[in-house]
Amino acid sequence: MKIRRSERLVGMTHYLENQPYRLIPLPIFAKKYHAAKSSISEDITILKHAFLANNIGYIETLPGAGGGVIFTPGINQETATHYLTELQQKLSDPQRILPGGYLYSSDIIGDATLLRKIGLLIATRYAGQKADAIMTVATKGIPIAQSVAYYLNIPYVIVRRESKVTEGPTLSVNYESGSSSRVEKMELSKRSLPQGAKVIAVDDFMKGGGTVSGMRNLVQEFAGELVGISVLVDSSTQQSNKDTNVTTLLNVQHLDAKVPALTVGLGNYLQVTDFSHFNG
Amino acid sequence: MKIRRSERLVGMTHYLENQPYRLIPLPIFAKKYHAAKSSISEDITILKHAFLANNIGYIETLPGAGGGVIFTPGINQETATHYLTELQQKLSDPQRILPGGYLYSSDIIGDATLLRKIGLLIATRYAGQKADAIMTVATKGIPIAQSVAYYLNIPYVIVRRESKVTEGPTLSVNYESGSSSRVEKMELSKRSLPQGAKVIAVDDFMKGGGTVSGMRNLVQEFAGELVGISVLVDSSTQQSNKDTNVTTLLNVQHLDAKVPALTVGLGNYLQVTDFSHFNG
Repeated sequence: MKIRRSERLVGMTHYLENQPYRLIPLPIFAKKYHAAKSSISEDITILKHAFLANNIGYIETLPGAGGGVIFTPGINQETATHYLTELQQKLSDPQRILPGGYLYSSDIIGDATLLRKIGLLIATRYAGQKADAIMTVATKGIPIAQSVAYYLNIPYVIVRRESKVTEGPTLSVNYESGSSSRVEKMELSKRSLPQGAKVIAVDDFMKGGGTVSGMRNLVQEFAGELVGISVLVDSSTQQSNKDTNVTTLLNVQHLDAKVPALTVGLGNYLQVTDFSHFNG
Repeated sequence: MKIRRSERLVGMTHYLENQPYRLIPLPIFAKKYHAAKSSISEDITILKHAFLANNIGYIETLPGAGGGVIFTPGINQETATHYLTELQQKLSDPQRILPGGYLYSSDIIGDATLLRKIGLLIATRYAGQKADAIMTVATKGIPIAQSVAYYLNIPYVIVRRESKVTEGPTLSVNYESGSSSRVEKMELSKRSLPQGAKVIAVDDFMKGGGTVSGMRNLVQEFAGELVGISVLVDSSTQQSNKDTNVTTLLNVQHLDAKVPALTVGLGNYLQVTDFSHFNG
C-alpha cells in the first residue's frame, strides 16, 4: 500500500511537470493508478505541499464536475536570485568580448542546464498571464524561446530575417537595426500565429532595441497583444529603451574591448517579477 | 514521517529528472532532506521501481565511496511506437505540402509537448552512448537539438550557413545541397566544440542528404567522432542515403503536390533502437 502511494506520487510529479498549465481532471489519475478518488485527493494534498517545499511550482485545485488540478511551474525569489547571479558570473568573463562590442554567449544558450534556468526565470515572470505564444527572432533567441515555451506549455514562433521556401506565405515588417542603423526586414509565416494571439517576445541580446520594436510591430500586424518582452542581456545605452515593457535578466554596465574589461550586472528582473505564488 | 518521505520522493524525482546523466552522490539528498542514509537508500529503491513503472527512465546505482545514482531518461517500445504514430498522423495532412515538395512542419517543431516526445525518442536511441554534444544546422534543427540535449544533458552546437559576427573564429566545410545540387558552405564557431568530441547530429528534414554529409565532414574537421545522425523526416529517394548511420523517425513514402496526396510512414527508428533498459 505504501509502495503504491509512492509510485503514484512519482508518476504524478512526472505527469504534472510534463503538462504545465493544463487542467488535469483527477479521474485521469484514478484510472491510471486504479486508485480511489479519495486516495488521489490525498495525493494531491501531499503534492501541493511537496511542490512548494521543493521549489517546483504551485498546484491549484479547481473544484466541481469540470474541475481538476493545474500545475504552474515557478521559483521563489531566493532561487531566482541564485540563478541570476550564476548567469551574471558566467557572462562576466572579458574573454567573451567579440569585435563590435558583442558578447560570445553560444555556450550559455547551448547549455541545457542553464537554459532550463533561463526558461524557468522567464516563465515565472509571466506565470498565470495566459499568453498564447512565445515569439523570437532567429537564431540565438530560439533556445530561450523554446525553454520558456516548455515551462509555459505554449507554442513558440520564429521570426526570420529572410524567409525560406518551407515557410509558406509570410507577413513582414521593416525595422531599424539599432546596431547598424540600417532598415531591415523581418517576417513570420502567416500560418504560425493565430490572429489576436497574446504574445511574449524573447531574445538573447538587446542592443539598440530595433529587433524588439520590430517584434512589437509584427505582433500588431497579426492584430495580437504583446504581453511583454524579456531579454537575457541588455546592452543598450539609450534610456529610451529602458522605460518599456521589457524585462531584462542581465545588464552590460561597462564594456571596453581594448583592455578588455567587462562589467555585467543584474537587470530589472527581480524588481518586476511577482513571486507571491511560489513562496510556499 | 509519511509526509517527509513523500516530500523527499517528489523532490528527488524532480531533482533527478533535471539532472539526467549526472552522478548524484546520495549524501546530497541526505543533507538536503536532513535524512538518514538508510532512508535515502530506501527512497532510491522505491524511485527505481516507480521510474520504470511510470516510463520515466532508469536509475543506476554505483556503489562505493565515489558512488551515487545516475538517471537515464528513456521510454519503452510501446510508448515509442505511440509517439511515432502520433507524429506520423500529424504529419500526414496533404495541406502540409509546400511548393518544391517541402512539408510545413513549423507547428510541430514549435509545439512544446511534441518536441518533448521527439527529444525523448532520440535520447532513448542514444541512451548510454556517452556523446559529448549534439550538432544541428540552423534553423529548424535547433528545437530538436535542444530537446535531445535536454534529455541527454549535453550541450548542442549550431552550424550556420552564413556565420554572424557574434560567433568569433569559425571552421567551415563545403557540401553539395542535395535539393539544388549547388555547392554550399556551412560553418561552426571554433569555440563551440572541443577537439575529439563524440557528436550526435540531428536535423528536421533529410532530402538529398547533403546537409547530413556536410555535418559529417564538419565533425571530421573538428577531429571528432560521429556517434550517429537522427532526422525527424526522411524524404530522400536515393537508396544511397539509407545505408548510413542515420536513424529516421518518419519517412515520406509518397508525395504528389498536384493532387495533393501525401503518405508518411514510420522510419527505421524502431528497428535500430535498443529498449532493453527501459522495459521495467
